[in-house]
Amino acid sequence: MNVPLGEGAEFDRIRTIADALGADARNLGDDCAVLRISDTSVVVSTDASVEHVHFERNWLDLEEIGYRATAAALSDLAGQAAAARGVLVAVAAPESSSADDLASVMRGAGAAARASGTQVLGGDLSRGGEWMLCATVIGVADCPVARRGATAGDGVWVTGALGGARAALEAFRAGRAPDAAARQRFAAPSPRIAAGQWLAAHGAHAMLDLSDGIASDAGHLAAASGVEVEIVLEELPVHPSAVEAALDARGEPVIFAAKGGEDYELLVAMPSSFGMESAAAFERAMDLTLSRIGSCHHGHGVRLLFRGSRLTLKGFNHFS
Amino acid sequence: MNVPLGEGAEFDRIRTIADALGADARNLGDDCAVLRISDTSVVVSTDASVEHVHFERNWLDLEEIGYRATAAALSDLAGQAAAARGVLVAVAAPESSSADDLASVMRGAGAAARASGTQVLGGDLSRGGEWMLCATVIGVADCPVARRGATAGDGVWVTGALGGARAALEAFRAGRAPDAAARQRFAAPSPRIAAGQWLAAHGAHAMLDLSDGIASDAGHLAAASGVEVEIVLEELPVHPSAVEAALDARGEPVIFAAKGGEDYELLVAMPSSFGMESAAAFERAMDLTLSRIGSCHHGHGVRLLFRGSRLTLKGFNHFS
Repeated sequence: MNVPLGEGAEFDRIRTIADALGADARNLGDDCAVLRISDTSVVVSTDASVEHVHFERNWLDLEEIGYRATAAALSDLAGQAAAARGVLVAVAAPESSSADDLASVMRGAGAAARASGTQVLGGDLSRGGEWMLCATVIGVADCPVARRGATAGDGVWVTGALGGARAALEAFRAGRAPDAAARQRFAAPSPRIAAGQWLAAHGAHAMLDLSDGIASDAGHLAAASGVEVEIVLEELPVHPSAVEAALDARGEPVIFAAKGGEDYELLVAMPSSFGMESAAAFERAMDLTLSRIGSCHHGHGVRLLFRGSRLTLKGFNHFS
Repeated sequence: MNVPLGEGAEFDRIRTIADALGADARNLGDDCAVLRISDTSVVVSTDASVEHVHFERNWLDLEEIGYRATAAALSDLAGQAAAARGVLVAVAAPESSSADDLASVMRGAGAAARASGTQVLGGDLSRGGEWMLCATVIGVADCPVARRGATAGDGVWVTGALGGARAALEAFRAGRAPDAAARQRFAAPSPRIAAGQWLAAHGAHAMLDLSDGIASDAGHLAAASGVEVEIVLEELPVHPSAVEAALDARGEPVIFAAKGGEDYELLVAMPSSFGMESAAAFERAMDLTLSRIGSCHHGHGVRLLFRGSRLTLKGFNHFS
């Protein structure tokens, strides 16, 4: 089966799975399952958050762990231009945890659902050796946008600013407390649900949310759409905490931001007619920046340009 | 918030969660989330399977682990009289596992999806300290049936035979190989999707799938419907492997079966007009037995009768 994903060990695993499943699978490359029900597309996505892999207990409190896991899943709906209609949360909780601990996790999940205009509709509880949350989100889209659909000539845009979550993650891993703005980006991502719908209504050709890092995620868009995505790294909008973290480490802020994952901003291919005036309208309507960072061309893969030269970067990958 | 579940520590946790969530949650008692889209009910459920909690690696191979986790989730759709439309599988895999191991798990998930007439539409991959699968199932129902809706006078019926999965589980736990029929019941449950739809079309008032054991699950139906459910244990259909296991341990087969979980048969309240002739029609159409085991009355809770006396049983519970 052809799985239109970019390069990387995690995506190689998905290709191996798709081969093993054969006709028992469909559209494994996308983040979401999309079902057509009457005139509506129902979009469903599931996202696991595992202790020691996605978070440590001494980084976040349990309510934040619930919030973050749920918001990360809701971000998949944003990438499809869907509105959120419900959340289910399966939790495996260690033996040592209490009923109040579980309630804290779920309170965070509920707050994340509320922030996206929806509710927790169910879930599943189990014991486990470590904390693990699996958030499933359900949305509906009148005109869903997928990763495929970009064409040569499209502009490539990104919402918000990148690298803030990485700045927090690096501080946590070094045993330091991240600054408040970076911590907020890591602990409480904002699924760009309204932004996704706005962009779809204004002609988005292809879209996805940024979870693995811009190089990796742009690779998925390129593979699914059958185009080459060129990104001019100098154009990347960098989160202030990421600028600071990069300069502290004598690095380039845009490269620091490009290598960060879990920003949960939207990467979108807009037709060439979508220009700076349209972007200004987006920014006024959404109170969120929209930056043009590149363009789509005939070809395949991702071309990252920095100071006029081509650069190769790797994003975060659980299986590398 | 009122959560209409029976007694038990696991259900107390759900009540604590519902209190913590307040308006951020809706209908937490049911196994499934039901969304109304145009004229169709979209039913979504999520189910976690955790190594050392739900299974051990030396009991089942990885393909069986994937099959079982997916079939258990699909069974939730059967309980709502929904047809399966898709499966998403999130997997956390230990560091020591290979791409082939993951492919085996997913091959099992794909086979379970196929057996219920559907496909794997997506998922999520992560590292984890132990194997954990979270299967999310999506279904559609023209006339969904919930746990609420039973009324005094209804007959209480159960599909298939009970206790087979418990016979396998007890053998595994004792370090013995279960007999082939019991092993099959444990490793490859049959979600009763077609049976659920047949029963709904023939007037089912309330229904759910049996995962926690008959006493516990009947308690949910009683609590959701606001009735007392009386079950005559002598009427329980007992799986041959369970009869053997019970007699080996000098126990009563019907009590052994009543205390077993994970049978994934359907428990259903049918109107009093549904009699033995209707049951025979079900059995012919579905090639599956349907046994009348009790009735609904004014009151609340579950009354288990054995040799004319009242009996108290506890089902399996992850938090007891």
